[in-house]
This record gives sequence, structure tokens and C-alpha cells, in this order.
Amino acid sequence: MRPSGRNLSQMRPISIETGVMRHAEGSCLIRCGNTHVLCSASIEDNPPRFLKGTGLGWVTAEYGMLPRATNTRNRREATQGKQSGRTQEIQRLIGRSLRAGVDRVALGERQITIDCDVIQADGGTRCASITGGWVALRLAVNKLLEAGTLTRDPIVDHVAAVSCGIYAGQLVVDLDYAEDSEAGTDGNFVMTGTGRLIEVQMSAEGATFSRDEMAQLVDLAEAGIAELTAAQRAALK
Amino acid sequence: MRPSGRNLSQMRPISIETGVMRHAEGSCLIRCGNTHVLCSASIEDNPPRFLKGTGLGWVTAEYGMLPRATNTRNRREATQGKQSGRTQEIQRLIGRSLRAGVDRVALGERQITIDCDVIQADGGTRCASITGGWVALRLAVNKLLEAGTLTRDPIVDHVAAVSCGIYAGQLVVDLDYAEDSEAGTDGNFVMTGTGRLIEVQMSAEGATFSRDEMAQLVDLAEAGIAELTAAQRAALK
Amino acid sequence: MRPSGRNLSQMRPISIETGVMRHAEGSCLIRCGNTHVLCSASIEDNPPRFLKGTGLGWVTAEYGMLPRATNTRNRREATQGKQSGRTQEIQRLIGRSLRAGVDRVALGERQITIDCDVIQADGGTRCASITGGWVALRLAVNKLLEAGTLTRDPIVDHVAAVSCGIYAGQLVVDLDYAEDSEAGTDGNFVMTGTGRLIEVQMSAEGATFSRDEMAQLVDLAEAGIAELTAAQRAALK
Amino acid sequence: MRPSGRNLSQMRPISIETGVMRHAEGSCLIRCGNTHVLCSASIEDNPPRFLKGTGLGWVTAEYGMLPRATNTRNRREATQGKQSGRTQEIQRLIGRSLRAGVDRVALGERQITIDCDVIQADGGTRCASITGGWVALRLAVNKLLEAGTLTRDPIVDHVAAVSCGIYAGQLVVDLDYAEDSEAGTDGNFVMTGTGRLIEVQMSAEGATFSRDEMAQLVDLAEAGIAELTAAQRAALK
Amino acid sequence: MRPSGRNLSQMRPISIETGVMRHAEGSCLIRCGNTHVLCSASIEDNPPRFLKGTGLGWVTAEYGMLPRATNTRNRREATQGKQSGRTQEIQRLIGRSLRAGVDRVALGERQITIDCDVIQADGGTRCASITGGWVALRLAVNKLLEAGTLTRDPIVDHVAAVSCGIYAGQLVVDLDYAEDSEAGTDGNFVMTGTGRLIEVQMSAEGATFSRDEMAQLVDLAEAGIAELTAAQRAALK
Amino acid sequence: MRPSGRNLSQMRPISIETGVMRHAEGSCLIRCGNTHVLCSASIEDNPPRFLKGTGLGWVTAEYGMLPRATNTRNRREATQGKQSGRTQEIQRLIGRSLRAGVDRVALGERQITIDCDVIQADGGTRCASITGGWVALRLAVNKLLEAGTLTRDPIVDHVAAVSCGIYAGQLVVDLDYAEDSEAGTDGNFVMTGTGRLIEVQMSAEGATFSRDEMAQLVDLAEAGIAELTAAQRAALK
Repeated sequence: MRPSGRNLSQMRPISIETGVMRHAEGSCLIRCGNTHVLCSASIEDNPPRFLKGTGLGWVTAEYGMLPRATNTRNRREATQGKQSGRTQEIQRLIGRSLRAGVDRVALGERQITIDCDVIQADGGTRCASITGGWVALRLAVNKLLEAGTLTRDPIVDHVAAVSCGIYAGQLVVDLDYAEDSEAGTDGNFVMTGTGRLIEVQMSAEGATFSRDEMAQLVDLAEAGIAELTAAQRAALK
Repeated sequence: MRPSGRNLSQMRPISIETGVMRHAEGSCLIRCGNTHVLCSASIEDNPPRFLKGTGLGWVTAEYGMLPRATNTRNRREATQGKQSGRTQEIQRLIGRSLRAGVDRVALGERQITIDCDVIQADGGTRCASITGGWVALRLAVNKLLEAGTLTRDPIVDHVAAVSCGIYAGQLVVDLDYAEDSEAGTDGNFVMTGTGRLIEVQMSAEGATFSRDEMAQLVDLAEAGIAELTAAQRAALK
Repeated sequence: MRPSGRNLSQMRPISIETGVMRHAEGSCLIRCGNTHVLCSASIEDNPPRFLKGTGLGWVTAEYGMLPRATNTRNRREATQGKQSGRTQEIQRLIGRSLRAGVDRVALGERQITIDCDVIQADGGTRCASITGGWVALRLAVNKLLEAGTLTRDPIVDHVAAVSCGIYAGQLVVDLDYAEDSEAGTDGNFVMTGTGRLIEVQMSAEGATFSRDEMAQLVDLAEAGIAELTAAQRAALK
Repeated sequence: MRPSGRNLSQMRPISIETGVMRHAEGSCLIRCGNTHVLCSASIEDNPPRFLKGTGLGWVTAEYGMLPRATNTRNRREATQGKQSGRTQEIQRLIGRSLRAGVDRVALGERQITIDCDVIQADGGTRCASITGGWVALRLAVNKLLEAGTLTRDPIVDHVAAVSCGIYAGQLVVDLDYAEDSEAGTDGNFVMTGTGRLIEVQMSAEGATFSRDEMAQLVDLAEAGIAELTAAQRAALK
Repeated sequence: MRPSGRNLSQMRPISIETGVMRHAEGSCLIRCGNTHVLCSASIEDNPPRFLKGTGLGWVTAEYGMLPRATNTRNRREATQGKQSGRTQEIQRLIGRSLRAGVDRVALGERQITIDCDVIQADGGTRCASITGGWVALRLAVNKLLEAGTLTRDPIVDHVAAVSCGIYAGQLVVDLDYAEDSEAGTDGNFVMTGTGRLIEVQMSAEGATFSRDEMAQLVDLAEAGIAELTAAQRAALK
Repeated sequence: MRPSGRNLSQMRPISIETGVMRHAEGSCLIRCGNTHVLCSASIEDNPPRFLKGTGLGWVTAEYGMLPRATNTRNRREATQGKQSGRTQEIQRLIGRSLRAGVDRVALGERQITIDCDVIQADGGTRCASITGGWVALRLAVNKLLEAGTLTRDPIVDHVAAVSCGIYAGQLVVDLDYAEDSEAGTDGNFVMTGTGRLIEVQMSAEGATFSRDEMAQLVDLAEAGIAELTAAQRAALK
């Protein structure tokens, strides 16, 4: 039995509220159960230096967590003088994932920065950041299309992410913190709206897993991501 | 005329929503017009090292701002390797102000950290942080009283803050960003619920002001703070 | 009774020795009792980047303290990898205060940096830095006027500062360290030579004060600053 | 055709030379084609603080690259004040992978640090670090067994890693730099000597891949890793 | 001819004023021509950690320079986040030199920190720091002897330092900035009061020198250091 | 007797293997007994900024040590956020020494960076870095000459370095770690192939030495350096 009483393949309730930050070109508050992430998209007219003159755009991401998003207060990264390795790993993943759903030629020489700030954490914050970050990105790009700055839509597909893992010997989807902290094998899956894979990260802390288990975890992820992209569509209506 | 159409002595609408962060011992989301700050209180059973063995407690604060809380995206302090001088100045002010409303003997050897994270900024974020931070502190202390950990209430009075300044030659209260960025003289006032002063910071960037203007600004602040403490009381009911 | 035996409204002996650093465009050693600060002014022909093309000049300040300026050795900030929040707060105050006495159009596109290094500390170092820093600034501007680089004097008035506070229940001026470390309420006042206010910072560490006490502290400050501007005038003769 | 002329499933020549660092408890120089990594294992009698009193041991890793390991000189991380996000991500991966092959109870309360320093880089440095790091670890543990410090072997299986990816539309194993910098999809696979998975990281920079391609890449990895564990065995004889 | 008009073997005027910092256990202001350094000695009752339980004492040094000690303002190290390599090299030299004149058994388990802060620079600041630092050390140790904390004098000899170099083809002593910035070969010599060598640092920036020149430079240094130790003796009377 | 059984004036076996790093313009692995340093030279077509437009070239150096180059593992500088004072001191010495053997006009406006990474340490790593660094530099310059980029050879002489010191009362050359850690007086000597001095650094940690001892140490160094330049010549054949 899962601590939350969910079935093995049952996702947490998903809610995506758009337009929550008045200054951002796109924004949403995504809630996956008790994991809440504020996502915003900021457009800059200039691309990063390494893309000057290439005609290509860029999508990048930054990730943060409020000190008391967690059960016990964690130290503010700004007071520690640097982002942790974990934070950097997560924000690189978010940026890479979102870029896979963007036609960078159609975007043109501009940069969109997705900020994902975890307001409340209960497992799966990186996946919620990708799913919500895509909505913020979609809204910002809509603005560019509406303003006529862009004439061709650079977004080629939905991008969403979910975690799967082996908890107490069972294969489960969308792990909450209670499951995540105990799981032997733990994976994050990023997929498009049409079911293609963008990123697979499976890791067995002090354990191992079989090829068969791997395939079943991808099955679980595929079903979960279909629910997430449906929620994205609903929120954007 | 003020850009917002308010009267000279008119505050922005105040809203204080409590219990917004499930892990924190106390929390609220304070909205002063378009300035929104998430405040949480975290209790630690141990005081900071310099108070070990003194019987005294401590209240401290940290302040942050989401990158896209502002009109143009500002760089995340965690990626810059340090908190700015402005951030440090603000969080020292918040901590000092809240301590003035606390009986540190009654609090006993423990520390309460108030995190104030600006979700959206439109001027007056440090004042909103103090007013909202006090509510989070009050809620956390209530928990200690309810649990019987504390038997005597260490909170001696309300603490709230408001800005006043000289904008376009007029003395105004509760400046928004449009006013704040143009004001010649600019002040922050922290007061108790019974009208005593805790902190006065008046500053004339490239200008000066008279003693008479100073007195009138304190009058404005006094009235504004009465409204804020009323809002605190209402939120805690 | 004050630890030093001074009357409540009695300033410490003030001495300002000019021309003490052969390389600086302006310099002085200011002594307020046992607080000694070395102040220098350095002229740069270029303004900071944010003022390029505006026709405006800039005055900024940096503050430091020798490790053994204090009773027990304090750690050198250069070895700690950063300036403390307190140092940054002080140097921002000094810069802001001095700019209030300068016509930045008349100064033209150049920057003057005031370095204030505390050689010996006995309370009131930020006030001594402002009062001495103004003398260094005056001397540097004199050089520009004598050289014909400037034809109109950008300095519009004296700027000086003094502390006041409530020590042992009494309102006193120009607190030394023994008083400062015990005072419940503590304020720093920056004023012009003609008695206008530039900056008021009053703070009650763990206490509060009334509006009436506030007014009396400003009275004390006003008288003290008159003595300080007289000393500035004498030093510049 | 691959730039190196290799078949799609052809690994680069592997060479593992042991005992190359006289001070280390275990060491080897692993060469996978032109990628050369110096691996050492250092035993500390104390575990990290978070394991004190648990009876468990720890294996951790650090990764570095000489400035001129690459075609153009890259800046030394020590002069940049921090390890890059990429470096941290890699060394976390190496540590996690090696721990999956260790019985931490049998290791007891001690720590083994694996240093992987890339002397020359031509793609696949993190995989070579894991494969070579395991040999260094094996040698260090052998010393503990020979000395009688350990009586039960804490190493439960071989650990080795290889990259696979989609280069020019073809699925290939063990990518060199020329392939790696062009590949649309790129993966790193860590497996045990008995073919169980420890870590799968597949990433499509600006592209996507199908579940079928994913399965074929794992097939390639499995065959490659069998060659690598054979090379480990040969080196240890 | 030397820019200052001095003879080849002529030192600059030396002045050592003691007792200039009221809080320090020992202090002096040393002036070697236009090079002025403020030196203080601070006694701590505990030795650094690596000496706990050894019975040995420690003498260490820190070096700094006011931003406007030089002809053009140099950036404050505290704002740059670290001490430069040059600063660290100098303070290690000062500490090492002074320790050579101290019996660390007689000093016992305590630490004396010598702070050398350059108020005005005109070449030879590290040598002036050593010569003046020794006087501050001597005064601090005298206090320990007078108080009976020490019964045996741990100072075994004078320590002083001078620079020598080859300027415009001539071998000269005690180089000022005009000479130092042009000299092909440049050396710093630290010696005891009885003429034994403690440290020799000779360096030819982009040039070379012969063994015969080396010997002559040591002759010059020996004579100069005799003058410096005489000045130390005079100052301590 | 020396711990290694060598005679007082006997160098350790020297081996210099060239061309060990395929990407570098010049490289070698120098072995002085058990001290092994990997040296590479990287050519950049642009000089550092302070030399733009002067027609002069630059040679600089960076120094590092693998964590397990030493008997007990030392912390990686990249994880400590900065290079130690010792590292900076050493790399400044290497750069300065190599520049003394180069005609910077003939080199023209380009920069050559010498990286010296200690693979294994047993005393004398800075000297081995200079001797090996010169070989890497020589090879890189040869490439520029062969390519016709340079028509005149900017290298004017060999540069090599050796340590000498007083160990157990005896004057010895080329100290290994066992000697170095015990020596009272310790010196590093950098010389040209024709016997001219470039750098002399003699230091007596807690001791002193006489002028006569100094002269004998230079004699020892001179003989040792002749052996080193012979080894350089042999390696380059």
C-alpha cells in the first residue's frame, strides 16, 4: 500500500492556475498534490552570447526552493554563496527538456528564461517544474505570436514529466516525499505530448534493477504524462 | 495626483491570508496592493550560539525576491554567489523590528526564523515583510503556547511597518513602485500596536527635508500603521 | 552620568587634520575623541557605467576598519571573502549622505570615491566617516576648481553627522562605545550646514521610543552638527 | 560511417594499467581510445559525519579534468572559485554508481574516496571514470582484506559504464568526441557484471527518441559493458 | 643617479613611532621615506588548533593596503572577495620572518597576530612591515613579561628587512617606487640583529643576474639592516 | 646520511618524456625521482589585455596537484573555492622564471600558458614544474617556428630549477619530501643554461643561516642545474 492510499498507477491531483505573476510574460502555479511550484517565463530580446548571429533562440531555466518549502527549514542558497549541485542538475534538466519541444529557428534570436520556484515540496519538484514551466513558456510564446513578433509558432509539442520508481517492491508512479525517500530505484521521465522520449534518468541508490522493470516503469510514465498534458491543455483553454 | 489615484493618506488594500505553507509553524501571504510577500516562521529548539546559556531567545529574518517579482527580471541571488547589500540591510531591519515586540526571556532559549519571500513587487516590500512576518511569528508562538511549551506569551505587542515619502512635492503614505522610484525623500517607519516607534529610516537621495516635513511624515505613518495592525488582528481571528 | 564624564549634550573633542595622504586628491584624519578615521577622496574622470551620457557625476564611498581598531581584534574582511552586511550598510549611507550635498550636474561626468578607513574605533565611526569624508571631498573638488576643470562649485552645502541615543534613561549626543553598546535607542542623523535633514536612522534594539523622545534627539543632533560643521570650516582654512 | 571507422557496435581499445600512483591505496590509468583517466582510491578510517554510529561505510567520488586535456584549453576550476554544474553532476554519478556495487554494512564505518582526473579527453570521460574507478576501489578493498581489516568482501559485483547514442541517424556505442558533439540522443548506462542496471541517463538535446530506439541502445550498452568488465578482470589478474 | 638623489647605499629616513593604537598590545607607525605602515600586535591566549597540546606558540601576520595608499586608487580586497596572491605571499613572508626571531617554546601556547596595514606606499612595503612588525611584537611581548605571564623572554634577536636591486645598471639599497618599478633585478633580505640571514628572495623579472652581483646585493642589505635595527632600538627606548 | 642514501650533492634520477598530451602544443612528463609532473604548453593568439598593442608576448603558468599525489589525500582546490596562497605563489614563480628565458618582442603578441599538474609528489614539485615547463614551452615554440608563424626564436636560454637546503646539519641538493619536511633552511634556485641566476628563494623556517652557507648552497644548485639542462637537451633530441 502507498502511504497516500493511492493505487500503484494513480497520479496525485493536478491543478494549473495561469497568470499568477503580473510582471511575467507567462506564469502559472502548478500543484501536484502538496508539491506547489511557481513558474514564470521572461523574454529577453537578445540571445545568450554564444548564439549571437546564428539565428537561433534559447530557452533556459533556473530552479529554487523557498527555505520553508520543506518539512524542516533548509538553508537559503543565496546565503550559502552558491547553488548546490542538486539545484544546478535540476535546472539544467528543465532547460534541456523544454528546448526539446521548441523549434529554435522559429524562435529566432531571443532568450526565454523559465524560473521555477518551489513554494511547497512533497516529492517530484523537478517534474512539476517541467510540466508547469512548459505552460509558462507556452503563454509567453503566445504573447509573441499575438503581438506579431513571431509569425510561426516555435513550440512543436507539449513537454511534461513524471517520476516513477520501485517503492516497497512495487512499481509506482508520481512518488511523493514519503515514497521518494524510501525508494530503491527512482526515475524521472520527460516526454512529449505525442509520447516520444526526451529524457530518461533512472538511478538505483545502493541497488540495481532489471531491464524488465525498466520497461514497466516507462509504461507507467507514459500513462502519467498523458494525464499531465491533458491538464496543460485544460489550463490553457 | 498619485499615479494610482489614491488620496495622499490612503493606504493600498491590505489582505493577509494565513496558513498558506503546510510545513511552517506559522505562515501567511500578505498583499499590499500589488506587493505580495510569502512569510513563514520556523522554530528551532536551539538558540544561536552566542545565546547559549543566557536563557534568552532570538528572532531573526531572511528576505528574498523571486527573479520575476519585478517588472524586468532580476538575477537570482543564489547564482550571484551572495546576497546584495540591499537584501542584507532589509533582513537585518526585519529581524530587529520583530525582536522589539518580543520578550526574549519569555521566549526562552529557542530561535524563530522569519522567511519573507517577495512573490510580486510593487514598492514597500520591506514594510510588507515586517507586517506579514509578525503574523507568521504570532502564529508560530501560538503553537508553542497551545502545546504548553511556553506558558507565558513572549509577544508583547503588534509590530507593523509602512513607508511614507515626498512624491512630487506632496507627502504621501504607502508608496508604490511608481512613487518610490521618483520620491525625493523616502522613509520607512516601524511601530507597535500602541503607537510607539521601533525604527525610523528617512533618507533623501540627492535632496534634503525639513524637521516639519519629518513630523508630518510620522503623522502619516502613525495612521497607516493603525490600519495595518487592524488587518493583522482581523487575519488572526 | 556618562562614562566619559561628559554632559548630556557635550560632544567629544573634534580634530580634523587635512592633507595626510600624499597620493589622494583630498584627505583628512578626523578624530572624534578616540574614534579616528582616515578619509581620502579619489577622482576618476569616468562616471560609473549607468551614468554614461547623462551629464551627471557620482560620489560613492567605501568603508573599512583595521583589524585592531577595536578592543578585541576583529577578522579582516578581505580574508572572509566579503564585506559584512554592516559594512555595506555603512558605506551606502556615507555615499548617499555626501551626494545630498552635491550638485551632480555641476560635477559633470566624473566619479569621486571617498574611502573611510577606521584606524581606531570608540563608537560613532559612520558619523565620523561622513563628517571627515565631506572634508576630503571638499579638498578634491577644490583641486578641480583650481585646475579649471570645474568652473562652477558642485558642492552646495556642508554635510556632517552625529549619533544620539537614550543611554541609561538619558538622552545623550555623540555616544562613545561604552554608551553605544548599552543604549536602548540609538540614532544617526545626517544634516547640512544650514540645518536641513539628509538622513535619519533611529533604531530601538529590543525596545521602543516615543515621538517626544524622537523630537528631543533631533534637537541634540542639530546642536552637535553645528559644532561639527564649524570644525570642518576651521580645518579647511 | 563513424568518424573513427569503427562498426556501430565496436568499442574503442581499452587498456587498464594498475598501481600507477604510489601513495594511493588503489589506482589505475584507464585508456578508452584517446580518453585517459587517472583513478585513485583513498581510504579514510572515519565515515562522513552523517554515518557516524550507523555501522555503514561510504564510497564517494571527485572528478576533475586537466586544463589541456581537451582540444582547446579549458579554464582550471580551482581558479574559477567553484566546480561547474557539469563536474558536480558527474562526480555524483560516479559515487552513486560505485556505491551500488558495494555492501556498505560489510565495508563498515569508513570512507573510500575515488578521484578521477581526466588526463586526456575524447568523449566518454564519465564512463571511463566509473569503469576505472571501480578498479581502483577493488584494489583498495583488496588491501583492507589482505591486512585483515575487513574479513568479508564488501564488493558485491563489478560496476562499469558505457555511452550509447544516435549519431547521424545510427545507433552507436562508446561515442568519441566527434560523435558525442553531434549526437541528437546521447545516453550513459551503468551496469553490474551480471547485467543489472544501476543508472540510465538518456537525453535528447533539442530532439526526441522512441521507446524502440531506447531498447536498442540498452542492447548496445549491455554488450559494451561485458567487454569492459572483461577488461577489469584482466587488469586485476 | 637615483630619482631621489640618494647615494647607491643610502637608506631613506626611518622613523618609528610606538604606541599609536590604543587597543593593541603593541603598535607602531613605521615610516621609510614615503612608505608608511601601521603595525599592531594582538595577543590571543589560545594557539592555532594545530599547536594545541604541543607547548609551542605561534606568530602570524596579515597585510593590507588602504585603497588610496598608492598613486592611483587600487580596489579594496574586501570588495573583491579575496586577498590577492601578492598579499598572501607577503603576509606569509612577514609571519615566517618574525617567527625566526622567536623561541616558540618560551612563548608558550599563545598566538600573536601582527597586522601590517600600509597607509601610504612608495616601494618596500613588505620590508617596512617586517621591521615595524617586529617592534609591535617586541612591545606586546614586553607586556607579557611585565605582567609576569612570561618569565623568560621568547624574543631571541631583532628581525628587520630591506630591499636591494639593480636599477639602471647600478646596485642600490632600499628602492622606492620609482626604482622598484624599473629595476631588472629586485631582492628582499630579512636578517637578524646579529647579521644572520632569515630569508633571501631575489627575482629577475625578464632578466638574469650573476653570482657576483648577488653577493654585492647582500653586502648592501647587511649595511642597511644594521641601520634599521638601530632605529628599532632607538624607538624602543 | 640522507634518507634516500644519496650523496650530499647527488640529484635524483631525472626522466623527461615529451609529447604525452595529444591536444597540447607542447607537453612532457618530468620525473625527478618520485616527483612526477605533467607539463603542457597552450598557445593563444591573443596576448593578455594589458599587452594589447605593445608588440610583446606573455608566458604564464598555472599549477595544480592531484588530490592523491601526496601521502595523505589533500583536498581538491576546485572544491575549496580557491587556490591556496601556496599554489598562487608557486605559479607566479613558474611564470616569472620562464619569462626570464624568453625574448618577449620576438614572441610577439601571443600568450603561452604552461600548466603544471603534479601527478605524484615527493618534494621539489615547483622546481620540477619549472624544468619540465620549459621543455613544454620549447616544444610549443618549435611548432610556431616550424609553421613559420615565428621567424626568430624567442627562447634565449634554458631555464631549470633545483632545491637545496640544510638537512640534519648538512648542505644537500634536490631534497625529497623526507628531507624537505625536516630541513631548517630551504632554498629554490632558478638558473639559465649558461649559469646566470633568475630567482633565489631561501627561507629559514624558525632558524637562520650564514652568508657562507648561502654561498655553498648556490654552488650545489649550480651543479644540479647543469644536470637538469643536460636532461632537457637529451629529451628534446
